[in-house]
Amino acid sequence: MRAAFYEGNEKIRVGESVPVPPKAGEVQIKVSHAGICGTDLHIFHGHMDKRVTFPQIMGHEMSGTIHAVGEGVINYSVGDRVTVMPLDPCGKCPACLAGHNHICQCLKFLGIETSGAFQSIWTVPAHTLHRLPDQLSLEHGALVEPLAVACHDIRIGEVKRGESVVVIGSGPIGMLIALVAKEAGAKVLIVEINAYRLQLARQLGFDALNPIEEDIVKYVAQYTGGAGADVVFEVTSSAAGAEMMTQLPRTRGRIVVVSIFNQLPKVDLHRIFWRELKMAGARVYEHEDFEKAIQLAASGQLPLDSLVTEIYPLERLEEGFRQMESGGKIMKILLSCS
Amino acid sequence: MRAAFYEGNEKIRVGESVPVPPKAGEVQIKVSHAGICGTDLHIFHGHMDKRVTFPQIMGHEMSGTIHAVGEGVINYSVGDRVTVMPLDPCGKCPACLAGHNHICQCLKFLGIETSGAFQSIWTVPAHTLHRLPDQLSLEHGALVEPLAVACHDIRIGEVKRGESVVVIGSGPIGMLIALVAKEAGAKVLIVEINAYRLQLARQLGFDALNPIEEDIVKYVAQYTGGAGADVVFEVTSSAAGAEMMTQLPRTRGRIVVVSIFNQLPKVDLHRIFWRELKMAGARVYEHEDFEKAIQLAASGQLPLDSLVTEIYPLERLEEGFRQMESGGKIMKILLSCS
Repeated sequence: MRAAFYEGNEKIRVGESVPVPPKAGEVQIKVSHAGICGTDLHIFHGHMDKRVTFPQIMGHEMSGTIHAVGEGVINYSVGDRVTVMPLDPCGKCPACLAGHNHICQCLKFLGIETSGAFQSIWTVPAHTLHRLPDQLSLEHGALVEPLAVACHDIRIGEVKRGESVVVIGSGPIGMLIALVAKEAGAKVLIVEINAYRLQLARQLGFDALNPIEEDIVKYVAQYTGGAGADVVFEVTSSAAGAEMMTQLPRTRGRIVVVSIFNQLPKVDLHRIFWRELKMAGARVYEHEDFEKAIQLAASGQLPLDSLVTEIYPLERLEEGFRQMESGGKIMKILLSCS
Repeated sequence: MRAAFYEGNEKIRVGESVPVPPKAGEVQIKVSHAGICGTDLHIFHGHMDKRVTFPQIMGHEMSGTIHAVGEGVINYSVGDRVTVMPLDPCGKCPACLAGHNHICQCLKFLGIETSGAFQSIWTVPAHTLHRLPDQLSLEHGALVEPLAVACHDIRIGEVKRGESVVVIGSGPIGMLIALVAKEAGAKVLIVEINAYRLQLARQLGFDALNPIEEDIVKYVAQYTGGAGADVVFEVTSSAAGAEMMTQLPRTRGRIVVVSIFNQLPKVDLHRIFWRELKMAGARVYEHEDFEKAIQLAASGQLPLDSLVTEIYPLERLEEGFRQMESGGKIMKILLSCS
């Protein structure tokens, strides 16, 4: 079998590896496809060296088929088509005991705190598995994880039919949020500065504006009869996004913080007070979000092919990172791992 | 009749004034007591000169008896003991139409956009009136407005019996929030740097810590078995408060932004994401908060006398402002206006 190893300092080595036999309660998966996530790019850049173990096999967005099952695994058999919800909570911390084990206070994230999916054979706990229906291709199955993020975000944002939604930033997660919001019956505006992503957003039928060219606050006010948007998703991690997110919602409107801020941005708390805005953080997903994502992906309603820019062999992982760094004509890159 | 006029540049003149006859739908109130609010101090300091009209009669926390009723006012009679919910919404803007007229997008706040209660006879729209029960003194009746703010904040924070609550900043509003949270069955910790207020908080039976002397984050973590607080109220308008508010809540815990920030503080959006915190702004009150405040004040359960530091004649308004500025041994100053 083959695996891609991150060896620190932006070094990737792809080479032979030894499959890990499944222990009790584990399964071995033959990985079909694995998506490269922004988080993997952060690891590649060395930002998360404290969390990973060298040499680290990254990757947590994937699809595959069961290759072997460990003792006591009764719900899955060899050959089953699956994806993985890559969370391994402790079950004992206050967050777990309160029913929020998806954000366990000592969560192990598969592919960060453990070995990940950028390899031919991946061994994971069976509790992380979700079955893929026959009509869902393995390429699209590798998109279930980011789609589940979007389903979680829409659920946290309590998006309802007929509501006006603004998504600030339309990388893969922002675009999936926009698609899930649209599927939920919302009217969606995308705010994006990347020309390729703006064009893609418009091709997919969205209103999409460049904040460098348009006054977004004015546009949203006009578009909503002076009220403001019902829900705003911040998906840029930028100071500009953090500034805009409070200016767009209506009275008692909602802001969902989806992106990962590495700095402390300035936030207009006066506006939050003045309009009685509600803000919520949304991180990863719960099992119901994974099920919703699988159902949506399998329904064929979402233009998932449009989001897959490239499918590369595992050997081209580093090239994929370089393309993502360039910020050019890129959405999701999948790796073919089998 | 007498009135206190703000003439700009920290100048107050107390002198004779002419009562305003009540028009249709209005009532004339003989003002008994009026509290000085932090907002009045902001006006006195010239921070709100764009919103007021010179010479401005300030004041919006009050109690009194009906002196005359205008045409069409059928629910109130001369002699009725009342307080005023000092909000005059437009009824037509998107916020009003959505049922949030307490934060109307063109709200007139009585005592800021109109003449206020720092006078012997005050004329207001009858829709602003709330009746005071006989067992509630007129001194305590003047505390209903700030108490309604606290009731609103607790409602927005969805504080439940048994929950752990942290109130950062215990001026009059912070202390009232702590009292209403305690009445709702919460365990309350007060964080405060003013020695007088710390002492008062402890006298009233609260845990109260000085963040300069104690590690509040560590204390709250220990106090909650590593979980964090259920609800945190930010009532300081300070950068330090904005920093602390995100560090204290448990996973999915709530932050209520009560205070009025004049600058954009840095906010740890990563923490909001990481713990899926919920933040909400809470501004003024709705009618149900006023009714709850009246019921609580009349119940005799709250130590309201402890919050009234001084009762001055109207002539001593400026002296009251100077005392508030000094940040010393002061909570609420009432003016006797009759």
